Amino acid sequence: MPKVATQASVSLDGFIAGPENGGFEYLFAWCRAGDVEVPTASPGRSYKVSEASAGYVRDMIHGYGALVVGRNQFDGMDGWGGQHPMRVQVFVVTHSVPEGWAPESAEFVFVTEGGVKAAVERAKAVAGDKNIGVGPGVVAREALEEGLLDEIRIDLVPFMLGEGVRFVDTLGAAPLEFGDPQVIQGKKVTHLVYPVTAGAAGAR
Amino acid sequence: MPKVATQASVSLDGFIAGPENGGFEYLFAWCRAGDVEVPTASPGRSYKVSEASAGYVRDMIHGYGALVVGRNQFDGMDGWGGQHPMRVQVFVVTHSVPEGWAPESAEFVFVTEGGVKAAVERAKAVAGDKNIGVGPGVVAREALEEGLLDEIRIDLVPFMLGEGVRFVDTLGAAPLEFGDPQVIQGKKVTHLVYPVTAGAAGAR
Repeated sequence: MPKVATQASVSLDGFIAGPENGGFEYLFAWCRAGDVEVPTASPGRSYKVSEASAGYVRDMIHGYGALVVGRNQFDGMDGWGGQHPMRVQVFVVTHSVPEGWAPESAEFVFVTEGGVKAAVERAKAVAGDKNIGVGPGVVAREALEEGLLDEIRIDLVPFMLGEGVRFVDTLGAAPLEFGDPQVIQGKKVTHLVYPVTAGAAGAR
Repeated sequence: MPKVATQASVSLDGFIAGPENGGFEYLFAWCRAGDVEVPTASPGRSYKVSEASAGYVRDMIHGYGALVVGRNQFDGMDGWGGQHPMRVQVFVVTHSVPEGWAPESAEFVFVTEGGVKAAVERAKAVAGDKNIGVGPGVVAREALEEGLLDEIRIDLVPFMLGEGVRFVDTLGAAPLEFGDPQVIQGKKVTHLVYPVTAGAAGAR
Protein backbone atom coordinates (compact mmCIF):
# COMPACT_ATOMS: atom_id res chain seq x y z
CA MET A 1 0.00 0.00 0.00
CA PRO A 2 1.33 3.46 -0.79
CA LYS A 3 2.85 5.27 2.16
CA VAL A 4 3.13 8.89 3.14
CA ALA A 5 6.70 9.41 4.31
CA THR A 6 8.95 12.24 5.34
CA GLN A 7 12.68 11.88 4.93
CA ALA A 8 15.75 13.89 5.84
CA SER A 9 19.47 13.65 6.34
CA VAL A 10 19.87 14.46 10.03
CA SER A 11 23.09 15.16 11.94
CA LEU A 12 23.90 13.31 15.17
CA ASP A 13 22.86 16.41 17.07
CA GLY A 14 19.52 16.64 15.27
CA PHE A 15 19.93 19.19 12.48
CA ILE A 16 18.85 19.08 8.83
CA ALA A 17 20.92 22.18 8.02
CA GLY A 18 23.90 23.70 9.79
CA PRO A 19 24.60 27.29 10.82
CA GLU A 20 23.73 29.88 8.14
CA ASN A 21 21.82 27.21 6.24
CA GLY A 22 25.08 25.39 5.47
CA GLY A 23 26.56 22.05 6.44
CA PHE A 24 25.21 20.18 3.43
CA GLU A 25 28.69 18.86 2.61
CA TYR A 26 28.41 16.88 5.85
CA LEU A 27 24.70 16.02 5.73
CA PHE A 28 24.95 14.63 2.20
CA ALA A 29 28.51 13.25 2.30
CA TRP A 30 26.96 9.75 2.31
CA CYS A 31 25.51 10.36 -1.17
CA ARG A 32 29.09 10.29 -2.56
CA ALA A 33 30.71 7.95 -0.04
CA GLY A 34 30.52 4.63 -1.86
CA ASP A 35 31.33 2.73 -5.03
CA VAL A 36 27.84 1.81 -6.22
CA GLU A 37 26.42 4.27 -8.71
CA VAL A 38 22.66 4.79 -8.60
CA PRO A 39 21.34 7.03 -11.38
CA THR A 40 18.53 9.45 -10.63
CA ALA A 41 15.74 10.54 -12.98
CA SER A 42 17.87 13.57 -13.86
CA PRO A 43 20.44 12.91 -16.63
CA GLY A 44 23.99 13.19 -15.33
CA ARG A 45 23.00 13.14 -11.67
CA SER A 46 23.65 10.04 -9.63
CA TYR A 47 24.39 8.79 -6.16
CA LYS A 48 27.62 6.94 -5.35
CA VAL A 49 26.84 4.96 -2.24
CA SER A 50 27.73 1.79 -0.37
CA GLU A 51 26.18 -1.50 -1.41
CA ALA A 52 24.02 -1.41 1.73
CA SER A 53 22.64 2.03 0.89
CA ALA A 54 22.08 1.31 -2.82
CA GLY A 55 18.82 -0.61 -2.38
CA TYR A 56 17.49 2.03 -0.03
CA VAL A 57 18.37 4.78 -2.50
CA ARG A 58 16.79 2.92 -5.42
CA ASP A 59 13.59 2.47 -3.42
CA MET A 60 13.67 6.15 -2.60
CA ILE A 61 14.22 7.31 -6.17
CA HIS A 62 11.66 5.01 -7.74
CA GLY A 63 9.31 4.72 -4.79
CA TYR A 64 7.88 8.21 -4.72
CA GLY A 65 4.97 9.03 -7.03
CA ALA A 66 4.43 12.60 -5.84
CA LEU A 67 5.84 15.07 -3.34
CA VAL A 68 4.32 17.57 -0.92
CA VAL A 69 6.54 20.49 0.08
CA GLY A 70 6.20 23.83 1.84
CA ARG A 71 6.49 27.19 0.16
CA ASN A 72 9.79 27.86 1.94
CA GLN A 73 11.38 24.79 0.41
CA PHE A 74 10.00 25.67 -3.03
CA ASP A 75 11.37 29.20 -2.77
CA GLY A 76 14.67 28.07 -1.24
CA MET A 77 15.26 25.71 -4.17
CA ASP A 78 14.07 28.28 -6.75
CA GLY A 79 11.43 25.81 -7.89
CA TRP A 80 14.21 23.35 -8.77
CA GLY A 81 14.62 25.23 -12.06
CA GLY A 82 11.11 24.29 -13.20
CA GLN A 83 11.07 20.58 -12.42
CA HIS A 84 11.93 18.53 -9.35
CA PRO A 85 14.95 16.21 -9.97
CA MET A 86 12.78 13.21 -9.07
CA ARG A 87 10.59 14.02 -12.09
CA VAL A 88 7.37 13.72 -10.14
CA GLN A 89 4.58 16.22 -9.64
CA VAL A 90 5.16 18.44 -6.61
CA PHE A 91 2.30 19.81 -4.50
CA VAL A 92 3.34 23.07 -2.86
CA VAL A 93 1.45 24.14 0.27
CA THR A 94 1.19 27.92 0.09
CA HIS A 95 -1.08 30.88 0.76
CA SER A 96 -0.82 32.17 -2.79
CA VAL A 97 0.49 31.10 -6.19
CA PRO A 98 3.98 32.57 -6.63
CA GLU A 99 4.33 35.20 -9.32
CA GLY A 100 5.20 33.87 -12.75
CA TRP A 101 3.96 30.35 -12.08
CA ALA A 102 0.79 28.65 -13.34
CA PRO A 103 -1.46 27.47 -10.50
CA GLU A 104 -1.26 23.93 -11.89
CA SER A 105 1.10 22.25 -14.33
CA ALA A 106 2.54 18.79 -14.89
CA GLU A 107 5.44 19.80 -12.65
CA PHE A 108 3.83 21.83 -9.85
CA VAL A 109 0.46 22.29 -8.20
CA PHE A 110 0.12 25.17 -5.75
CA VAL A 111 -2.33 24.14 -3.05
CA THR A 112 -3.73 27.34 -1.55
CA GLU A 113 -6.70 25.84 0.32
CA GLY A 114 -6.90 23.10 2.93
CA GLY A 115 -3.24 23.03 3.96
CA VAL A 116 -1.06 19.93 4.14
CA LYS A 117 -4.05 17.61 4.38
CA ALA A 118 -5.50 18.80 1.07
CA ALA A 119 -2.07 18.62 -0.58
CA VAL A 120 -1.54 15.02 0.58
CA GLU A 121 -5.00 14.05 -0.74
CA ARG A 122 -4.25 15.58 -4.12
CA ALA A 123 -0.82 13.95 -4.21
CA LYS A 124 -2.34 10.54 -3.45
CA ALA A 125 -4.69 10.96 -6.40
CA VAL A 126 -1.76 11.12 -8.84
CA ALA A 127 0.77 8.81 -7.13
CA GLY A 128 -0.99 5.55 -7.98
CA ASP A 129 0.60 2.73 -6.00
CA LYS A 130 3.73 4.77 -5.26
CA ASN A 131 4.58 6.65 -2.07
CA ILE A 132 4.04 10.30 -1.22
CA GLY A 133 7.10 12.18 -0.01
CA VAL A 134 6.48 14.99 2.45
CA GLY A 135 9.18 17.66 2.86
CA PRO A 136 10.79 18.06 6.28
CA GLY A 137 10.22 20.95 8.66
CA VAL A 138 6.85 22.59 9.17
CA VAL A 139 5.04 20.52 6.52
CA ALA A 140 6.22 17.26 8.09
CA ARG A 141 5.24 18.49 11.53
CA GLU A 142 1.73 19.36 10.36
CA ALA A 143 1.41 16.02 8.56
CA LEU A 144 2.53 14.27 11.75
CA GLU A 145 0.16 16.25 13.95
CA GLU A 146 -2.77 15.56 11.64
CA GLY A 147 -2.04 11.83 11.51
CA LEU A 148 -1.20 11.83 7.79
CA LEU A 149 2.28 10.28 8.02
CA ASP A 150 3.00 6.55 7.79
CA GLU A 151 6.79 6.64 7.99
CA ILE A 152 9.66 8.82 9.12
CA ARG A 153 12.88 8.08 7.28
CA ILE A 154 15.97 9.42 8.96
CA ASP A 155 19.33 9.26 7.24
CA LEU A 156 21.44 9.73 10.37
CA VAL A 157 24.93 10.98 9.55
CA PRO A 158 28.00 10.72 11.83
CA PHE A 159 28.56 14.45 12.15
CA MET A 160 27.69 17.05 14.75
CA LEU A 161 26.93 20.49 13.35
CA GLY A 162 26.59 22.36 16.66
CA GLU A 163 23.56 24.40 15.66
CA GLY A 164 21.20 24.95 12.74
CA VAL A 165 17.74 23.97 11.55
CA ARG A 166 16.15 21.21 13.60
CA PHE A 167 14.50 18.23 11.94
CA VAL A 168 11.23 18.83 13.75
CA ASP A 169 10.98 22.13 15.59
CA THR A 170 8.75 22.95 18.58
CA LEU A 171 6.55 19.98 18.03
CA GLY A 172 3.16 20.90 19.49
CA ALA A 173 2.03 17.30 19.72
CA ALA A 174 5.11 16.01 21.60
CA PRO A 175 5.78 13.64 23.22
CA LEU A 176 5.26 11.31 20.27
CA GLU A 177 6.10 7.63 20.08
CA PHE A 178 7.02 5.68 16.95
CA GLY A 179 7.53 2.02 16.20
CA ASP A 180 10.99 0.45 16.18
CA PRO A 181 12.87 1.28 13.00
CA GLN A 182 14.11 -0.78 10.12
CA VAL A 183 17.87 -0.13 10.14
CA ILE A 184 20.28 -0.12 7.21
CA GLN A 185 23.91 0.72 8.01
CA GLY A 186 25.61 2.35 5.04
CA LYS A 187 28.82 4.31 4.70
CA LYS A 188 28.67 7.65 6.50
CA VAL A 189 24.93 7.09 7.08
CA THR A 190 22.54 4.99 9.13
CA HIS A 191 19.15 4.72 7.43
CA LEU A 192 16.38 4.47 10.04
CA VAL A 193 12.81 3.92 8.85
CA TYR A 194 10.35 4.49 11.70
CA PRO A 195 6.71 3.46 11.30
CA VAL A 196 4.17 5.92 12.62
CA THR A 197 1.74 3.52 14.24
CA ALA A 198 -1.85 4.50 14.96
CA GLY A 199 -1.73 3.63 18.63
CA ALA A 200 1.66 5.18 19.10
CA ALA A 201 1.03 8.73 17.90
CA GLY A 202 0.76 10.51 21.21
CA ALA A 203 2.81 8.87 23.91
CA ARG A 204 0.87 10.39 26.78
CA MET B 1 42.39 -1.43 25.46
CA PRO B 2 40.23 0.54 27.90
CA LYS B 3 38.08 3.18 26.26
CA VAL B 4 36.78 6.52 27.37
CA ALA B 5 33.12 6.63 26.38
CA THR B 6 30.13 8.87 26.85
CA GLN B 7 26.68 7.37 26.69
CA ALA B 8 23.13 8.66 26.77
CA SER B 9 19.56 7.77 25.92
CA VAL B 10 18.68 10.32 23.24
CA SER B 11 15.25 11.07 21.76
CA LEU B 12 14.71 11.13 18.01
CA ASP B 13 14.74 14.90 18.17
CA GLY B 14 18.04 14.98 20.05
CA PHE B 15 17.20 15.42 23.74
CA ILE B 16 18.55 13.63 26.82
CA ALA B 17 15.81 15.13 29.02
CA GLY B 18 12.43 16.53 28.13
CA PRO B 19 10.73 19.76 29.16
CA GLU B 20 11.11 20.63 32.86
CA ASN B 21 13.78 17.94 33.18
CA GLY B 22 11.17 15.23 32.57
CA GLY B 23 10.56 12.69 29.84
CA PHE B 24 12.57 9.93 31.46
CA GLU B 25 9.63 7.52 31.16
CA TYR B 26 10.17 7.76 27.39
CA LEU B 27 13.96 7.98 27.33
CA PHE B 28 14.37 4.88 29.49
CA ALA B 29 11.30 2.90 28.37
CA TRP B 30 13.71 0.52 26.61
CA CYS B 31 15.22 -0.49 29.97
CA ARG B 32 11.91 -2.25 30.82
CA ALA B 33 10.76 -3.17 27.28
CA GLY B 34 11.93 -6.77 27.02
CA ASP B 35 11.91 -10.21 28.59
CA VAL B 36 15.59 -10.68 29.36
CA GLU B 37 16.50 -9.70 32.90
CA VAL B 38 19.98 -8.23 33.38
CA PRO B 39 20.88 -7.60 37.03
CA THR B 40 22.90 -4.52 37.96
CA ALA B 41 25.46 -4.17 40.72
CA SER B 42 22.67 -2.81 42.94
CA PRO B 43 20.61 -5.50 44.67
CA GLY B 44 17.00 -5.53 43.46
CA ARG B 45 17.69 -3.31 40.47
CA SER B 46 17.73 -4.85 37.02
CA TYR B 47 17.08 -4.16 33.37
CA LYS B 48 14.39 -6.03 31.44
CA VAL B 49 15.43 -5.74 27.83
CA SER B 50 15.26 -7.48 24.47
CA GLU B 51 17.69 -10.29 23.68
CA ALA B 52 19.50 -7.95 21.28
CA SER B 53 19.99 -5.30 23.95
CA ALA B 54 21.00 -7.72 26.71
CA GLY B 55 24.60 -8.17 25.56
CA TYR B 56 25.01 -4.44 25.14
CA VAL B 57 23.64 -3.81 28.62
CA ARG B 58 25.88 -6.47 30.20
CA ASP B 59 28.91 -4.90 28.53
CA MET B 60 27.78 -1.54 29.82
CA ILE B 61 27.23 -2.69 33.41
CA HIS B 62 30.43 -4.70 33.69
CA GLY B 63 32.52 -2.69 31.25
CA TYR B 64 32.99 0.51 33.21
CA GLY B 65 35.74 0.67 35.81
CA ALA B 66 35.21 4.30 36.81
CA LEU B 67 33.00 7.26 35.91
CA VAL B 68 33.63 10.96 35.35
CA VAL B 69 30.64 13.26 35.90
CA GLY B 70 29.95 16.96 36.26
CA ARG B 71 28.92 18.67 39.46
CA ASN B 72 25.42 19.30 38.05
CA GLN B 73 24.84 15.61 37.56
CA PHE B 74 26.19 14.81 41.01
CA ASP B 75 23.91 17.42 42.59
CA GLY B 76 20.92 16.46 40.42
CA MET B 77 21.20 12.85 41.56
CA ASP B 78 21.87 13.83 45.21
CA GLY B 79 25.15 11.92 45.03
CA TRP B 80 23.21 8.75 44.24
CA GLY B 81 22.55 8.38 47.96
CA GLY B 82 26.26 7.95 48.69
CA GLN B 83 27.22 5.39 46.05
CA HIS B 84 26.70 5.17 42.31
CA PRO B 85 24.46 2.20 41.33
CA MET B 86 27.28 0.86 39.14
CA ARG B 87 29.38 0.46 42.31
CA VAL B 88 32.42 2.11 40.76
CA GLN B 89 34.40 5.13 41.92
CA VAL B 90 33.02 8.38 40.53
CA PHE B 91 35.24 11.35 39.74
CA VAL B 92 33.26 14.57 40.02
CA VAL B 93 34.55 17.61 38.14
CA THR B 94 33.81 20.61 40.34
CA HIS B 95 35.17 23.92 41.57
CA SER B 96 34.83 22.97 45.22
CA VAL B 97 34.12 19.93 47.37
CA PRO B 98 30.39 19.96 48.25
CA GLU B 99 29.56 20.51 51.89
CA GLY B 100 29.34 17.39 53.97
CA TRP B 101 31.44 15.24 51.64
CA ALA B 102 35.01 14.03 52.03
CA PRO B 103 37.29 15.23 49.21
CA GLU B 104 38.13 11.60 48.44
CA SER B 105 36.50 8.32 49.38
CA ALA B 106 36.07 4.87 47.87
CA GLU B 107 32.84 6.13 46.30
CA PHE B 108 33.64 9.69 45.17
CA VAL B 109 36.63 11.83 44.33
CA PHE B 110 36.02 15.54 43.85
CA VAL B 111 38.43 16.81 41.23
CA THR B 112 38.83 20.55 41.81
CA GLU B 113 41.93 21.15 39.68
CA GLY B 114 42.66 20.40 36.04
CA GLY B 115 39.09 19.95 34.84
CA VAL B 116 37.80 16.99 32.83
CA LYS B 117 41.27 16.05 31.64
CA ALA B 118 42.60 15.59 35.17
CA ALA B 119 39.46 13.67 36.16
CA VAL B 120 39.83 11.28 33.22
CA GLU B 121 43.50 10.71 34.09
CA ARG B 122 42.64 9.90 37.68
CA ALA B 123 39.77 7.66 36.58
CA LYS B 124 42.08 5.74 34.25
CA ALA B 125 44.46 5.09 37.14
CA VAL B 126 41.79 3.12 39.04
CA ALA B 127 39.84 1.54 36.14
CA GLY B 128 42.46 -1.05 35.23
CA ASP B 129 41.52 -2.66 31.93
CA LYS B 130 37.93 -1.45 32.15
CA ASN B 131 36.37 1.53 30.42
CA ILE B 132 35.85 5.05 31.72
CA GLY B 133 32.31 6.41 31.43
CA VAL B 134 31.98 10.15 30.97
CA GLY B 135 28.65 11.81 31.83
CA PRO B 136 26.75 13.56 29.04
CA GLY B 137 26.35 17.31 28.66
CA VAL B 138 29.12 19.77 29.40
CA VAL B 139 31.60 17.16 30.65
CA ALA B 140 31.20 15.09 27.48
CA ARG B 141 31.56 18.19 25.34
CA GLU B 142 34.80 19.15 27.08
CA ALA B 143 36.12 15.62 26.81
CA LEU B 144 35.26 15.64 23.11
CA GLU B 145 36.87 19.02 22.52
CA GLU B 146 40.04 17.98 24.32
CA GLY B 147 40.32 14.74 22.36
CA LEU B 148 39.80 12.53 25.41
CA LEU B 149 36.85 10.50 24.10
CA ASP B 150 37.16 7.21 22.22
CA GLU B 151 33.47 6.39 21.79
CA ILE B 152 30.06 8.00 21.77
CA ARG B 153 27.30 5.56 22.65
CA ILE B 154 23.84 6.74 21.72
CA ASP B 155 20.79 4.79 22.81
CA LEU B 156 18.39 6.31 20.28
CA VAL B 157 14.78 5.96 21.36
CA PRO B 158 11.72 6.18 19.08
CA PHE B 159 10.19 9.18 20.80
CA MET B 160 10.12 12.88 20.10
CA LEU B 161 10.06 15.08 23.17
CA GLY B 162 9.63 18.46 21.44
CA GLU B 163 12.11 20.32 23.61
CA GLY B 164 14.46 19.82 26.53
CA VAL B 165 18.14 19.29 27.27
CA ARG B 166 20.23 18.61 24.20
CA PHE B 167 22.72 15.75 24.11
CA VAL B 168 25.57 18.08 23.22
CA ASP B 169 24.80 21.77 23.48
CA THR B 170 26.52 24.62 21.63
CA LEU B 171 29.45 22.51 20.63
CA GLY B 172 32.33 24.93 20.15
CA ALA B 173 34.33 22.50 18.09
CA ALA B 174 31.58 21.66 15.58
CA PRO B 175 31.42 20.47 12.91
CA LEU B 176 32.75 17.15 14.14
CA GLU B 177 32.95 13.88 12.25
CA PHE B 178 32.81 10.39 13.73
CA GLY B 179 33.34 6.93 12.31
CA ASP B 180 30.42 4.76 11.21
CA PRO B 181 28.66 3.20 14.18
CA GLN B 182 28.22 -0.31 15.37
CA VAL B 183 24.42 -0.76 15.42
CA ILE B 184 22.33 -2.97 17.68
CA GLN B 185 18.57 -2.81 17.18
CA GLY B 186 16.73 -3.56 20.41
CA LYS B 187 13.16 -3.01 21.52
CA LYS B 188 12.29 0.68 21.84
CA VAL B 189 15.98 1.51 21.32
CA THR B 190 18.67 1.56 18.66
CA HIS B 191 22.14 1.32 20.20
CA LEU B 192 24.66 3.25 18.11
CA VAL B 193 28.34 3.10 19.09
CA TYR B 194 30.34 5.75 17.22
CA PRO B 195 34.15 5.66 17.28
CA VAL B 196 35.83 9.00 17.73
CA THR B 197 38.72 8.58 15.31
CA ALA B 198 41.80 10.72 15.55
CA GLY B 199 41.61 12.00 12.00
CA ALA B 200 37.91 12.51 12.17
CA ALA B 201 37.62 14.84 15.15
CA GLY B 202 37.19 18.14 13.39
CA ALA B 203 35.45 17.81 10.04
CA ARG B 204 36.72 21.11 8.70
